[in-house]
Amino acid sequence: MAAGTEQSAAARVRVDPVRLERAVTEIYVALGLPPDDALICARGVVLSDLRGHESHGVSNSVLDSYVPGLRSGTINPRPDIRVLHETSVTSRWDGDRGMGYVAGHRVMQWVMERARRHGAAFASVANSRHFGMAQYYPLMALEHDLIGLSMTGGLVRSVVPFQGVEGRYGTNPISVAIPAGAMPPFVLDMATTTVAGGKIVNAMRDGRSIPPTIALGHDGRPTTDPGEALAAKRMLPLGATKEGSGHKGYGLALWVELFTGVLSAQGFAARFEGDEFVVHFFGAWDPAAFLPLEEFKALMDGRLREMTETPPSEGYDRVLYAGFPEWEAEQEHRANGIPLHPSVVEQFTALAAELGVPFDVLR
Amino acid sequence: MAAGTEQSAAARVRVDPVRLERAVTEIYVALGLPPDDALICARGVVLSDLRGHESHGVSNSVLDSYVPGLRSGTINPRPDIRVLHETSVTSRWDGDRGMGYVAGHRVMQWVMERARRHGAAFASVANSRHFGMAQYYPLMALEHDLIGLSMTGGLVRSVVPFQGVEGRYGTNPISVAIPAGAMPPFVLDMATTTVAGGKIVNAMRDGRSIPPTIALGHDGRPTTDPGEALAAKRMLPLGATKEGSGHKGYGLALWVELFTGVLSAQGFAARFEGDEFVVHFFGAWDPAAFLPLEEFKALMDGRLREMTETPPSEGYDRVLYAGFPEWEAEQEHRANGIPLHPSVVEQFTALAAELGVPFDVLR
Repeated sequence: MAAGTEQSAAARVRVDPVRLERAVTEIYVALGLPPDDALICARGVVLSDLRGHESHGVSNSVLDSYVPGLRSGTINPRPDIRVLHETSVTSRWDGDRGMGYVAGHRVMQWVMERARRHGAAFASVANSRHFGMAQYYPLMALEHDLIGLSMTGGLVRSVVPFQGVEGRYGTNPISVAIPAGAMPPFVLDMATTTVAGGKIVNAMRDGRSIPPTIALGHDGRPTTDPGEALAAKRMLPLGATKEGSGHKGYGLALWVELFTGVLSAQGFAARFEGDEFVVHFFGAWDPAAFLPLEEFKALMDGRLREMTETPPSEGYDRVLYAGFPEWEAEQEHRANGIPLHPSVVEQFTALAAELGVPFDVLR
Repeated sequence: MAAGTEQSAAARVRVDPVRLERAVTEIYVALGLPPDDALICARGVVLSDLRGHESHGVSNSVLDSYVPGLRSGTINPRPDIRVLHETSVTSRWDGDRGMGYVAGHRVMQWVMERARRHGAAFASVANSRHFGMAQYYPLMALEHDLIGLSMTGGLVRSVVPFQGVEGRYGTNPISVAIPAGAMPPFVLDMATTTVAGGKIVNAMRDGRSIPPTIALGHDGRPTTDPGEALAAKRMLPLGATKEGSGHKGYGLALWVELFTGVLSAQGFAARFEGDEFVVHFFGAWDPAAFLPLEEFKALMDGRLREMTETPPSEGYDRVLYAGFPEWEAEQEHRANGIPLHPSVVEQFTALAAELGVPFDVLR
């Protein structure tokens, strides 16, 4: 999020986001998804790249996660996503092992419709799969002048509790988006670890070391080797050390773990060894249920602008806020194309040829 | 919270929590609060001490903040707390410059009643004052098998945005409490800074230095001097540095800032120079609106127990979770009394004598 977008030093080619979204949609259709669902999934990964979240973009996600999952049967291409329990402002869903994007999109629409009607609404989802960039769903809420929330848990047990030495849960991200008026919206999207797992993958691919605040190695001590960090599955919660207040990152992670794993009635990894279960929690609040929308937006703009007018500290040239760098990245990428590693384009071209669909995305 | 309770090395005397609550209630009544409101305020500070949150207990809060505020007129002892806007699950309130405890308690009761009826509910409060330990309100929700949320903002501009060098907002705490069955409940209560301000005060009183991840000094660089940290008003967001992902703590702080300052329609410090305005946001979810309560509690117990069974890392003897150390502290303090600095008891004794009320609290 706000620390800037993830650009490695390697040379990139620029691809057209509209054609990329269409090409990825066709790949998903060729893998068995209904066209509407394929579009939802393609839009999610391309939006990740547009907003500079390469770790959840087409390269890491589609090639390394979703395509293998659809081919192996871990991901169900045609899920029967259904509501299991429902009140006026809460609901619990079964994702039927489908793409997390599809369950997330469907459930977020339920949440937004109820929040518009009642002021706020929330939903949990069990039995789903990876849902991509957490901000995808809160960004949907912004289009309707709603505040959006998403959380997700499950998958690998790759993060240690504070003071612990074995992984017990995932990077458990939380995202909150709040609309503004003239200013770019506030969009918090953070793993509750020091960094998201994809950033360790990127560091390894680019041959960079990682700071010691990110993960423990095989010996239970901090490592700067991204390969060892990925293998040991002992990432550190935000704050990392006792002096850094690592118990706070752990507390945030457990909040996400309990809202997603317990309120969905799914349970936890220990009960599902070998299965790639993923759980979600979504929410929306209608600002107009608290105060007039125009007054709300004016207050948002004033406060966000004031943040950007803070004098920067030594070594920085400006002060931003969560969602601002992503907003800038999206403007730039929509105008000039999404920068991709040439090897990513090559892999996609080979995959598309194999599936018998076109892949013509270079600008 | 989970890093353990705040015990300084200094000698302490033990006081009886029930008699302390009664004595503080009488002090508040002598300062003009109605008896019911006085009890709510006394219960809050004593509960802070019981749970090991000395930074929000009787010593720092009553003597240094609430009593001077009530005497100077900054805090209104008999506020007209009223709802300004209301839907079925949302509301916005005016605290009329009263004790934040009183507004918080009143509004949290509204939130809990609506959450029981509809599944979830939320409320914002403008024009209030310091509301004490953030977990006081979520703890109320636990008594009714509800999940509770609180956030607060306002007061001094003592925290720098990530990459910035001037204070722009407060320590903006967030608290979430989730009930369990046999295990102690999950109670997250964290300032979105590396540490809460009261811990810097305690370090100064005890003559300890602070880690460089807590605050910038007058020169805009990290300081280890608690006195300079308090004077410079440049505390660092959780994560502190670029390598520590300080942008995440800043993002969490701004989330709190916007939910409390904007959804309450209060606005921000810049519009209220010289006034000690404080804003709050409260919420509750009913777990039974998602899944059967007994299943919910069984899942909670299983997951929390699993956390405590994680092997500890080098230098630690066990793994806990947010709310566990406070639960232990509360058991110990209810059995053996609350440890207070002898000077705190002396100051209270002098204050009580001045107000003509008894202060007999030693065990």
